[in-house]
Amino acid sequence: MKYYEQIQLSKQNEQHLYVQLFEAIKNFILEGLIVADEKLPPIRQLAEVLGVNNATVVKAYELLEKEGYIYKRIGSGTFVSPDIRSKMGSTAPDKFPLDEDLSLMNRGQIQIQEHMISFASATPTPDLFPVDDFQDLLNEILNRDKGNAFGYQESQGYYPLRESLVAYMKQYEINTKPENIQIISGAQQGIDVIAKAFVNPGDVVIVEKPTYTGAIATFKSRGAKIIDIEIYKDGMDIEKLETVIQKHKPKLIYMMPNFQNPTGYSYSDGKKHKILELAYQYDLQIVEDDYLSDLSFYNTENITLKSIDQHDQVIYIKSFSKIFMPGLRLGFLVLPEKTYHRILAAKHASDISTSGLIQRAFDLYLRKGIWKRHIHFMEHIYKERFEIMDLAIRKHILPYGVTYNPPLGGLSFWLCLNENFSTNQLYNIAAKKNILMVPGAVFFVGQKDSNCFRLSTAAVYPEQIEPGMIALSEAIREYIEKKESRKNSTSVYTPLL
Amino acid sequence: MKYYEQIQLSKQNEQHLYVQLFEAIKNFILEGLIVADEKLPPIRQLAEVLGVNNATVVKAYELLEKEGYIYKRIGSGTFVSPDIRSKMGSTAPDKFPLDEDLSLMNRGQIQIQEHMISFASATPTPDLFPVDDFQDLLNEILNRDKGNAFGYQESQGYYPLRESLVAYMKQYEINTKPENIQIISGAQQGIDVIAKAFVNPGDVVIVEKPTYTGAIATFKSRGAKIIDIEIYKDGMDIEKLETVIQKHKPKLIYMMPNFQNPTGYSYSDGKKHKILELAYQYDLQIVEDDYLSDLSFYNTENITLKSIDQHDQVIYIKSFSKIFMPGLRLGFLVLPEKTYHRILAAKHASDISTSGLIQRAFDLYLRKGIWKRHIHFMEHIYKERFEIMDLAIRKHILPYGVTYNPPLGGLSFWLCLNENFSTNQLYNIAAKKNILMVPGAVFFVGQKDSNCFRLSTAAVYPEQIEPGMIALSEAIREYIEKKESRKNSTSVYTPLL
Repeated sequence: MKYYEQIQLSKQNEQHLYVQLFEAIKNFILEGLIVADEKLPPIRQLAEVLGVNNATVVKAYELLEKEGYIYKRIGSGTFVSPDIRSKMGSTAPDKFPLDEDLSLMNRGQIQIQEHMISFASATPTPDLFPVDDFQDLLNEILNRDKGNAFGYQESQGYYPLRESLVAYMKQYEINTKPENIQIISGAQQGIDVIAKAFVNPGDVVIVEKPTYTGAIATFKSRGAKIIDIEIYKDGMDIEKLETVIQKHKPKLIYMMPNFQNPTGYSYSDGKKHKILELAYQYDLQIVEDDYLSDLSFYNTENITLKSIDQHDQVIYIKSFSKIFMPGLRLGFLVLPEKTYHRILAAKHASDISTSGLIQRAFDLYLRKGIWKRHIHFMEHIYKERFEIMDLAIRKHILPYGVTYNPPLGGLSFWLCLNENFSTNQLYNIAAKKNILMVPGAVFFVGQKDSNCFRLSTAAVYPEQIEPGMIALSEAIREYIEKKESRKNSTSVYTPLL
Repeated sequence: MKYYEQIQLSKQNEQHLYVQLFEAIKNFILEGLIVADEKLPPIRQLAEVLGVNNATVVKAYELLEKEGYIYKRIGSGTFVSPDIRSKMGSTAPDKFPLDEDLSLMNRGQIQIQEHMISFASATPTPDLFPVDDFQDLLNEILNRDKGNAFGYQESQGYYPLRESLVAYMKQYEINTKPENIQIISGAQQGIDVIAKAFVNPGDVVIVEKPTYTGAIATFKSRGAKIIDIEIYKDGMDIEKLETVIQKHKPKLIYMMPNFQNPTGYSYSDGKKHKILELAYQYDLQIVEDDYLSDLSFYNTENITLKSIDQHDQVIYIKSFSKIFMPGLRLGFLVLPEKTYHRILAAKHASDISTSGLIQRAFDLYLRKGIWKRHIHFMEHIYKERFEIMDLAIRKHILPYGVTYNPPLGGLSFWLCLNENFSTNQLYNIAAKKNILMVPGAVFFVGQKDSNCFRLSTAAVYPEQIEPGMIALSEAIREYIEKKESRKNSTSVYTPLL
């Protein structure tokens, strides 16, 4: 009864008592405080401890059963469902972590259901977030700063946070100063602000092919001419890049040098240096979107361009959405000295300033060193998933003639079917088998379909991965069979097992 | 000792004990729990109650004295300073509420000092914010929703909040539904998102002359051709407006029909209806920026265009920065049905979604009805300031030949000197007298100086207003004398008293 005794129900609360109780027990289950097949207390006993009617407990248990959290065994009582962890993060529509790519892609298409396994979302599930730490910090800030935490913050960002970030970046070998940091409301706003500052209609922007959907949308919105250059497993083709630079004189090159989204590829050290040399030679601005360089599982090359940039050509975007929490809506830019004023004006015209409350809480989070523990935790979680995923892909997916360059870290896996195949169609077949992935088309500029697709391990639990890959392999087989049967109505596709 | 006994000092805290004590007592003073000339407890007694060394209390008192919060009277003890309320909201650089207009205007110019009286800031001081209510709500949300409060929120906004806003808008006679509401991270983002959705380079946007600086910046950033039409005390000239519409076919008309910023003017009912008729006739999109219609002190006409819009031509922007707290970074749009998709895509490309935590807390704030109490409180506070201000302007400023159309509510007062006078120069003279106002130039499209300026009562205390206006009148006299002496080195300016 250890946990149950702590439950506090209140009649002042606008929710019914039984709903409050339902929520409390549900949270125990989601947090792993009570585990699969553990027995729940008998109704009468729990009612007595909590000082409520038996009926309240009965209704709460009914609701928990209905939503699949618990099951009854006649004569022996009520127990926590064994498959409950797989429900986490997807128990209600608003609890489904709407990923940036997903929400764009999915509009008006397939209805996302709670029982689906989502290899589509690149957003970690809410159970991984350091919520309790943040709640303490928010309270500490509000007690300390009162109303000041809710005033306008400086557009450039709360100065002490900029100081903390300077210290934080030292570990990533980026040396900067508070004056060159611009706080942003998430990486997407970073791209938007940079585009506002530098891109005018007709300007050329170079991106990787494929690249992050949100960047394409923003550059398009500024009227840019977007030129995409294919990315290989060690980065863009440098000669091709130089030719395009010479011909088109781009305003910006937007890239993710480590664990690129969607491919998961990382640039080789050699290519990183060559890209910087081009930047120096042609006085180019490079936008480095570092959403994940922290997630290198094997001590492989994952230096950032910014850390080796000797002539201040790189605008560095850092997001905390994958490592800490997307809902912080917090990130920052490390700016070349000369760009500071333009960026600040663009930030101001975008939303004046980022929430001071969140900035102040995150400042404490960094100052107190709590983030280190959390990054290790996330590395551990993601590495486990990464390895299971890599194995499952090799075992279940590659036999269908799928090509795949395994990444060295991160959350994304990029797989390609034969060239004339459609992953839009595969998406629909897989969704019917309750498997979600992202069809490649959303990552290309002006392309409506693609033979490639992205899988992500951010929002799946380890035990979901292999069953998920098996179901996906069935979807692939089914898709290929359909396609073949159109060509030749008698052949049956046999995988290369 | 009632309040002092509640002080909790902790050695685990990263701040020194004496700093913690300093902060605690400072907050008592700022919150009005201990008042001017009230005696503080003797050092030994307080040290005993708190279980700290005498030296800790001594150092805390020294710091309080140094920052002007308390004073010593030899032989009788330590007391709260009498002029302390005027220090509120401006005791430290990051505590100065950086207003949107101010921060743009002031970059690199006069250093804002803490002892200045700011008629420039249109942002309420932090002591007016409902911080305690929000702290309770944030905790309630985090206990209820855990990690879900920090996941990505739907780009359109948290559904329950959109429901609450539908109910909230009913009181303002705006009937809408959750599907037509778009949550935004403050009104500035609202303008930015609308501009992204509708304005392309070369498109014409009509604005009032003068208008809100942040809107000008955003439309310019989209490459719009901005045409400004003079606003009179009952609104724009309708004939002029129609001529411009016919000639230029604008994409948008951006306006603030109630208590316009910076003039404080409100459109007459007649003009409001005529503008809507033009919108129907020419199929025009009107952007109604309603940052303050709640602040009508005298039951005067302050209906919104949206409430009388019969053909869905108005995009309505509602900000909570002036009424609740700017640091919420929260507002919403009420959208015409047909614009929903474009706006959603633009919001997504801007920052994906607005903080789910804040949305959830604000939802409870509305559902529980706490906002009503706060709006009444703010009305009361602002009305008092408004009346003192209006009187002080008439008494001290108008005798210098200044023209002024008194507004009927809101926070802004728009005053004009003779036509060839410069309020940029006046700004500098006034600042030397520790008075801040906003020189009119920032509110005009491509104008470097203006004979008008804006005063605001958002960030001044009632007792500061008259002394502030007297000092401003001296600045005006000084400016006029200087100007006259250049023309005629012997004349001395005599005000029309």
